[in-house]
Amino acid sequence: MVKRNRNIGRLKAAYLFPEIARLRREFAAQHPDAKIISMGVGNTTEPILPHIAAGLTEGARRLERAETYSGYADEGLAELREQISGVYYKVAFGIDEIFISDGSKCDIGRLQTLFGPEVNIAVQDPSYPVYVDGSVVIGAAGKDDTASGGGYSGIRYLPCTPENNYFPDLSNIENDSIIYFCSPNNPTGAAADKRQLSSLVAAALRTGSIIVYDAAYSDYIRDGALPKTIYEIPDADKCAIEVNSFSKSAGFTGVRLGWSVVPKGLRFAGGESVNADWSRLTSTIFNGASNIAQYGGLAALDGEGQREIRQMTDFYLENASLIRGALNTLKIDCVGGDNSPYIWARFPGRASWEVFAELLEKYHIVTTPGSGFGPAGESFIRFSAFSHRAGIEEACRRLTAR
Amino acid sequence: MVKRNRNIGRLKAAYLFPEIARLRREFAAQHPDAKIISMGVGNTTEPILPHIAAGLTEGARRLERAETYSGYADEGLAELREQISGVYYKVAFGIDEIFISDGSKCDIGRLQTLFGPEVNIAVQDPSYPVYVDGSVVIGAAGKDDTASGGGYSGIRYLPCTPENNYFPDLSNIENDSIIYFCSPNNPTGAAADKRQLSSLVAAALRTGSIIVYDAAYSDYIRDGALPKTIYEIPDADKCAIEVNSFSKSAGFTGVRLGWSVVPKGLRFAGGESVNADWSRLTSTIFNGASNIAQYGGLAALDGEGQREIRQMTDFYLENASLIRGALNTLKIDCVGGDNSPYIWARFPGRASWEVFAELLEKYHIVTTPGSGFGPAGESFIRFSAFSHRAGIEEACRRLTAR
Repeated sequence: MVKRNRNIGRLKAAYLFPEIARLRREFAAQHPDAKIISMGVGNTTEPILPHIAAGLTEGARRLERAETYSGYADEGLAELREQISGVYYKVAFGIDEIFISDGSKCDIGRLQTLFGPEVNIAVQDPSYPVYVDGSVVIGAAGKDDTASGGGYSGIRYLPCTPENNYFPDLSNIENDSIIYFCSPNNPTGAAADKRQLSSLVAAALRTGSIIVYDAAYSDYIRDGALPKTIYEIPDADKCAIEVNSFSKSAGFTGVRLGWSVVPKGLRFAGGESVNADWSRLTSTIFNGASNIAQYGGLAALDGEGQREIRQMTDFYLENASLIRGALNTLKIDCVGGDNSPYIWARFPGRASWEVFAELLEKYHIVTTPGSGFGPAGESFIRFSAFSHRAGIEEACRRLTAR
Repeated sequence: MVKRNRNIGRLKAAYLFPEIARLRREFAAQHPDAKIISMGVGNTTEPILPHIAAGLTEGARRLERAETYSGYADEGLAELREQISGVYYKVAFGIDEIFISDGSKCDIGRLQTLFGPEVNIAVQDPSYPVYVDGSVVIGAAGKDDTASGGGYSGIRYLPCTPENNYFPDLSNIENDSIIYFCSPNNPTGAAADKRQLSSLVAAALRTGSIIVYDAAYSDYIRDGALPKTIYEIPDADKCAIEVNSFSKSAGFTGVRLGWSVVPKGLRFAGGESVNADWSRLTSTIFNGASNIAQYGGLAALDGEGQREIRQMTDFYLENASLIRGALNTLKIDCVGGDNSPYIWARFPGRASWEVFAELLEKYHIVTTPGSGFGPAGESFIRFSAFSHRAGIEEACRRLTAR
């Protein structure tokens, strides 16, 4: 009989967010009257604003007219790729360097397939689970020794802690690594500045590594001095791929639309083009994002769409500000929430899952335990600002009521 | 520097269909006045019919209203999974055995990641490229020796030829294999009957193999005696995964919606649940199909939607019939087109790419060279019925004009 893929066997039993959803359902079943408030998953809650929504509706309608019907558009609409290059990269990239996707998580999974099992891996610790879990799946993570608290043996964890202001020490990145780096960060909410990102690019160039830069929260940056893309750093186009998404900015978590940037200057050790391999891989195992979603994306990139993205991200940032206010009142040490929709709160000496359980049982609030994001997340809790305003306000009242 | 993934290096330089698109573009540039007719890619051309289209539009509109907005729906709408189980499987499967996807090709890529590099592979030859190419990408295909005409060393090719009536000899499937099987077949158009599929299931059970049954064209079956799903065969739920899609039936090639069935009875050698691993994997590296597409899928599954699918597939089958008629007039030996949208035409003693070039240069018709689907496809051409009626009629006129 067919043997189980041992890489899958090395995964922890459950992906973090379905596990949290399961615990929530269990609690709800036991406490049918509890009004549970979700501040757990980074799932958008607010309806898509009118202009962008009209783009989606028009995208759907185009499919019922012979003149505008379209089938496969594997490589993505040329106009959408052009607009992304213009709006996010000041036309620094050609459309054949911008690849339309069904979202960053899926793209990261495919990037892991691109790089294969034999690369070294470095991740911020804590980090969004797909960097580690996807590396495990493809066989690049080595044996699991999470039992010893050390994570996977084949992965270099780069702790991001209060002590280093949530920007990691880059000196112990191995040569020839794939470095997953997310800024503004999920889960810590930390947004790296120009000096920090310059040191990241320098570290990648020094070690012959490739950065996979996850900019999914770039539209939450409000501090004008902070870079919104890794390509604001000179020479990043020689060592970095960027992934981004409309999920958190336009409310497209359920619509599925994102992109990757793979510069033509990026090369493997033997001189082979990373861009050419990515193009070959995506045409082989992917069939493109929904063309309906792509018309929504086009609307999101024009002047009115960009104003709506600002309005949407402002709303969630106001939620974040309310959460921070409540945590400040409680004198709970926290960061994030100013240039990101996540607040990272510290509960010294306590286990994350224990605090998670207490918040659920006592306040009926669902959060995410920091240890779910990696060893250095232990004793932290991630609060997500993706929730309705009334829920956030009620959660803050419950938390601060004495 | 990061080394290129050697599995990617083993792929042929270009994926078949982008390569054909490139040749078409080149020809068009050299012959700007040529009215090129596409009978190449299996890309739908007809607008989505009104009821299903209204489902898509409603799906888009739901996202702009607070009461109906939805974000991530990784596992797919429960109602959609229920409907698929009801319409396609007579409720033989629970909704946790039906997984919603963004299409079969993408699902097959993820299934290859699920099984990993250490499985044996068997494929119909010729076959849809992703079975082989995706196996190469994940490292399950061994070294390429296509130069010797033998395909990849780690893949067992099962020739489907006129001599065996396009159903392969199953006696040389290795133990513990993943068997990719597509019926109605792309590219040959052959639809396996009950006796043939029973022998396939028996072969899988005998060899401890898992069938990945690609039923993407099942809605084209008109012969009532032919099985529309592998699960019409007893015990298939112990040895088979089925993938299917709305692409070719409802015109969703650009919408992106499909599903996989992974029965709970399916086990790996150590007794581990394939269903549980698939659930874990898809929640890790996938984020679900667009919820807009899913509302379109719901519409496609009700009575009116099913009537529209019948109307749409009838249209393409009429195209197929016209193509067969023209080839018969020319006394070109061909099969398919009766229970499938593809016609497989034989040009004895000639190379597929040579015939492809002749059809393009002489008749301005784009087809697909059979050798692109595997060694046994040499000297065949695939004609696709996915084209506008006027184009099909004009192509037939050009081919039969003397």
